[in-house]
Amino acid sequence: MTFTVTPIGHVRSSLADPAAAPRQPDEGAPAATLVIDDAYLAGLDGVAVGADLLVLTWLHQGSRDALTTRPRNDPTRPEQGVFSTRSPDRPNPIGLHRVRVVTMEGGAVGVDALEAVDGTPVLDLKPVLGDVAER
Amino acid sequence: MTFTVTPIGHVRSSLADPAAAPRQPDEGAPAATLVIDDAYLAGLDGVAVGADLLVLTWLHQGSRDALTTRPRNDPTRPEQGVFSTRSPDRPNPIGLHRVRVVTMEGGAVGVDALEAVDGTPVLDLKPVLGDVAER
Repeated sequence: MTFTVTPIGHVRSSLADPAAAPRQPDEGAPAATLVIDDAYLAGLDGVAVGADLLVLTWLHQGSRDALTTRPRNDPTRPEQGVFSTRSPDRPNPIGLHRVRVVTMEGGAVGVDALEAVDGTPVLDLKPVLGDVAER
Repeated sequence: MTFTVTPIGHVRSSLADPAAAPRQPDEGAPAATLVIDDAYLAGLDGVAVGADLLVLTWLHQGSRDALTTRPRNDPTRPEQGVFSTRSPDRPNPIGLHRVRVVTMEGGAVGVDALEAVDGTPVLDLKPVLGDVAER
């Protein structure tokens, strides 16, 4: 049983080399743009500057065969199962990134900080949930 | 351009009917079990009772054609783009659920509360990140 995912857009970023990319947004990642394809623009209705979003990406350079890894590629740390790490090497290499929207121009959604490299496919955007009463 | 995802396991839950399921874990969802397939057990090394996890699922009953929806299926609310909602109806119906691990027995990972119905495919598990110094 398998399922097919289709990107809704891609990341435009000054980051090109995964090896040089910060590991998480709060570790010095640059601002970036989520370029959403025209076919999916209607889905952006309600996404506004200031919103906190969860961005799901396809980490297309990850290794899907790895089940264990050394966290942060640190050779002094023991191997761990990939499900206890955020390594891009995992069976389904879906990246999860929390960002804040800082600009919106049509399908170009500017975000404050993102550690994904240029060209990374975007699969989904979700709002960060507030309290139950605000849903 | 498309990509293929392969479930690493599935949800075992007392919830059977999506229409009756709570919308989020903190809205009365029951405890559930993530049944991880034998082929992926090595990936669980380092996942322990007490851990906070993000569970990615495939919301196999969602409609992938929808780009707008009424939040919470409330007819009094205006249509919004799906990317500003947590609706299961979205182009790539990947569900995101925060849970706490309460039991572990081999590939059976018991979690405190999950709003996904019985049989929902599980795509990935990720740790909730603590402070930078703890990574």
